Amino acid sequence: MSSSGKSSAVKTKNSTFKVPVRISFLGGLNEIGKNMTLYEYDGDMFIVDCGLAFPESDMLGVDLVIPDFTYVQRNADKIKGVVITHGHEDHIGGLAYLLKVVNVPVYATPLTIGLIEGKLREHDMLDACDLRVIHPGDRIQLGKFELEAIHVNHSIPDALAFAIRCDAGTIVQTGDFKIDTTPVDGNMIDLGRFAEIGKEGVLCYLADSTNAEKPGYSASEMTVGQSFETLFRLAGKRRIIVATFASNIHRVQQIMNEAITNNRKVALSGRSLENVIAVGKELGYLEVPDDLIIPLDEIGNYEPWQILLVTTGSQGEPMSALSRMAFQDHRKVNISSNDFVIISATPIPGNEKSVSKVVNELMRHGAEVVYEKMYDVHVSGHASQEELKIMLALLKPRYFIPVHGEQKHLTKHAILANQMGMASRDIIIAEIGKTIEVCDGMFHEQGVVPAGKVFVDGSGVGDVGQVVLRDRTKLSQDGIITVVLTIDSASGEVLAGPDIVSRGFVYIRESEEIMEEMKRAAAEATEDCIDNDIRDWASIKSSIRDSVGQLVYERTRRTPMILPIIMEV
Amino acid sequence: MSSSGKSSAVKTKNSTFKVPVRISFLGGLNEIGKNMTLYEYDGDMFIVDCGLAFPESDMLGVDLVIPDFTYVQRNADKIKGVVITHGHEDHIGGLAYLLKVVNVPVYATPLTIGLIEGKLREHDMLDACDLRVIHPGDRIQLGKFELEAIHVNHSIPDALAFAIRCDAGTIVQTGDFKIDTTPVDGNMIDLGRFAEIGKEGVLCYLADSTNAEKPGYSASEMTVGQSFETLFRLAGKRRIIVATFASNIHRVQQIMNEAITNNRKVALSGRSLENVIAVGKELGYLEVPDDLIIPLDEIGNYEPWQILLVTTGSQGEPMSALSRMAFQDHRKVNISSNDFVIISATPIPGNEKSVSKVVNELMRHGAEVVYEKMYDVHVSGHASQEELKIMLALLKPRYFIPVHGEQKHLTKHAILANQMGMASRDIIIAEIGKTIEVCDGMFHEQGVVPAGKVFVDGSGVGDVGQVVLRDRTKLSQDGIITVVLTIDSASGEVLAGPDIVSRGFVYIRESEEIMEEMKRAAAEATEDCIDNDIRDWASIKSSIRDSVGQLVYERTRRTPMILPIIMEV
Repeated sequence: MSSSGKSSAVKTKNSTFKVPVRISFLGGLNEIGKNMTLYEYDGDMFIVDCGLAFPESDMLGVDLVIPDFTYVQRNADKIKGVVITHGHEDHIGGLAYLLKVVNVPVYATPLTIGLIEGKLREHDMLDACDLRVIHPGDRIQLGKFELEAIHVNHSIPDALAFAIRCDAGTIVQTGDFKIDTTPVDGNMIDLGRFAEIGKEGVLCYLADSTNAEKPGYSASEMTVGQSFETLFRLAGKRRIIVATFASNIHRVQQIMNEAITNNRKVALSGRSLENVIAVGKELGYLEVPDDLIIPLDEIGNYEPWQILLVTTGSQGEPMSALSRMAFQDHRKVNISSNDFVIISATPIPGNEKSVSKVVNELMRHGAEVVYEKMYDVHVSGHASQEELKIMLALLKPRYFIPVHGEQKHLTKHAILANQMGMASRDIIIAEIGKTIEVCDGMFHEQGVVPAGKVFVDGSGVGDVGQVVLRDRTKLSQDGIITVVLTIDSASGEVLAGPDIVSRGFVYIRESEEIMEEMKRAAAEATEDCIDNDIRDWASIKSSIRDSVGQLVYERTRRTPMILPIIMEV
Repeated sequence: MSSSGKSSAVKTKNSTFKVPVRISFLGGLNEIGKNMTLYEYDGDMFIVDCGLAFPESDMLGVDLVIPDFTYVQRNADKIKGVVITHGHEDHIGGLAYLLKVVNVPVYATPLTIGLIEGKLREHDMLDACDLRVIHPGDRIQLGKFELEAIHVNHSIPDALAFAIRCDAGTIVQTGDFKIDTTPVDGNMIDLGRFAEIGKEGVLCYLADSTNAEKPGYSASEMTVGQSFETLFRLAGKRRIIVATFASNIHRVQQIMNEAITNNRKVALSGRSLENVIAVGKELGYLEVPDDLIIPLDEIGNYEPWQILLVTTGSQGEPMSALSRMAFQDHRKVNISSNDFVIISATPIPGNEKSVSKVVNELMRHGAEVVYEKMYDVHVSGHASQEELKIMLALLKPRYFIPVHGEQKHLTKHAILANQMGMASRDIIIAEIGKTIEVCDGMFHEQGVVPAGKVFVDGSGVGDVGQVVLRDRTKLSQDGIITVVLTIDSASGEVLAGPDIVSRGFVYIRESEEIMEEMKRAAAEATEDCIDNDIRDWASIKSSIRDSVGQLVYERTRRTPMILPIIMEV
């Protein structure tokens, strides 16, 4: 491949330098290569995925985290398009923000496009965007790159991996994937095609490492259907409530099939669920008889054993439908001992506690709850160790970059490749913001690019930085004490105040007394400054801040933010 | 027992009313009966345990959570003493605060007393307290109650259960416990004594439910020692760093034994670890040759394979020794590929993410890390289902109250008892703040007592309430905007301002412009009030708050706290 006539090798006097492919990891909170990857070859660029991450607990007040688009913006004219592996938030959730920066064509499968359309509609930019439907086997030319879409299994239908070809060689990047030999839609990952590409020769392989710590194989989505069969029987005369990920359409299909078999009507609760089901039905991914789904308002017209309620909130999200039901805050659903609740998901790391809270509350109101590893009501959408090894065996890559995962997952995936005979020097564990250069005989980290997390808060993108977060952290710990005084600008005389107003600071037994002391301390600090002819407000404020802060700490062992404000008259 | 001569039965005209024991659950964040339980019989009271809980993520700025002592204070003259089951924070951490309210005798085993002394010394109240050492088999008279201490296994030595006798019958309360048939100190839980008490007849049983969801048996602490043998071999020439719970003295003993075998010196990092090891050595719970432990400063004088570093931070706590090592912030220890790190603990629910972060960082610096379920480097200190069933079988209680656990654990424990033949009406899942009355033929919830969480923040106890937490939450989400103006009190004329000062609020592209708009909105709101002869500051402030708040929301979709301050001259 690399010696074809179109080779972009650069000839100098004595030797031929090959042009490497540059792979840059632009997004992801902790997970390298998760949200966004950028490929560059000889002046042409394209992007794989553009997802979002949800803020961590120390990112106070932040709604979403998207990749940094600085590098994209800087190279806007080189970017030929965006290809999307599948329709999960962490792969499409940043797209609307990206397309505001570079409005290039977006390539994805029908379901993924359907979900992207919903996002773009929310941002009121659907008409302005160029969305192109592709199918497995299709080839897309993006500048000097040719991409081939390959079908993979995952916890959402219509997921893809890409074989990325250019004169430097073939690179394979999986999105999220697993090997499901009995998928619900009968459409197994195209292992044969991966094998053929492996035979042709793979320069470099980038693969999902999420479950690299898990030995064995991930179970088939089909097994969940079998569990539901058992559970619907166990539920007996009770109402069944199932919480699951909206986007797992095959899961939803199996749950609904069980409802049909058991003569239960289906009601939906949760906006994202209603959206995905509408898209799934419209595009033919979900087969549902017309009279199966009833409005949530009508569940009161049926007996408990005639109802299946499908809801969001399987991660214990505080505002979700299931959470509101558990805490008796749902307008239309009350939990009782007549309810049999199935949480068809495992907690994403960090959500364990909120899921437990919901489970506890549901039980407190008498419901029976099936959760976590009871009854196999969830399977992962990611390949376990044996599946990862099969892919490595089929593709036999020259070089390997484990992606999608924290350091511990990437390390484990690298060890698996080692065990299969790859040399450590042929494996790179990358970092967000790093660029890797690869071509035949060359595989190294080469430079950094602006990358990482940009915070979306309210309608603002990127306007919450470290200073704001630091202030919010301080405010959240001990609150704020505002010290206000009015000064005569001519004489320097204090005309009013100092007044003290606090928020989020404790009310303590001696608090009136401390308030008076604070006023006195602020007044003294101000007078000292004026007596010493210090008239710049910054110095006076700083002096007030120090003396009030010290007093408060001595008296309460707390360090609230002290905010002095001086008014001039 | 209940028909003895000392019976406190109350005789009325026609019948004999028995006096029940009243069991009140006064503490615990989510876990019923965890931190503090109060027993009352015929005017006499005593307390089992007084622990603390660590704040949840929404308890902003709170350092510790202790039980509510209102009910204790109200009944101070009836309380005959406090008995402590074992020396973990969630059972002793609130004691110093309790003894400030009622200074009664405290009964516990030697190690537990040793750890309590450390706490009381920190509060400078050791000399004022009456600590009494007891041993398994000892009986303590507390008013009309007689308590018998019974040895149990747990993840700290010297743990107890209590058989609590009075004329109403015998109640057995376990602390945290497991059945370890091969404990490190050879001292197995006194199953024989439980069997005897079961034969005598048990009115009511309160038992640890922490692991009621886990099938089978919990593994012996001994198995961890065997894993360490393997791991020390695997570490080879590298330095070994082990993070574990300071209080698990048997674990520490096994780790140190391995160091001795492998000719490694031991250095300690972490204050709590140093404290516990000092107490453990002094009281003879830990056998350590004099020359084994070296100061942390001296590790540089040895080769990596001559060093074992034992540290705190197995839960990924941000300020802990291990965390500081991982993030290259430890003054004396740098992590490299010469390090073999063993995290000998599983994450407590809620800590999964912080542990992962530490593991990732350690790996990023080249260390090999053994964590979670790799190699059995941790066993639980709590009984699994089969152990719980053995205790139920031995004690054959008339009534059962599962305690120590969230609703889901208690429910599971109740189901286990059901499966063993207990009727549901003889099992009560209690709630924090509830009182249960029990005697022969009587078992019901009877009334509520003031109970629950009291926040300790800085030097203040109980002065952080819901209003302060709500303010802190609001401040943490979008920050604060202060609007200050000075008004002539006579004329109502605005002399200075409105000035706007914000903290934790975003700096956005248009922010100068928005600042000006806010000033204008505040000024207009004020003028409107004054024009309409509204002169009370509360109304003016409210009007400013509304109009500035609305403007900010429209322009930024954010809802910071708006704090209007009016100065009068």
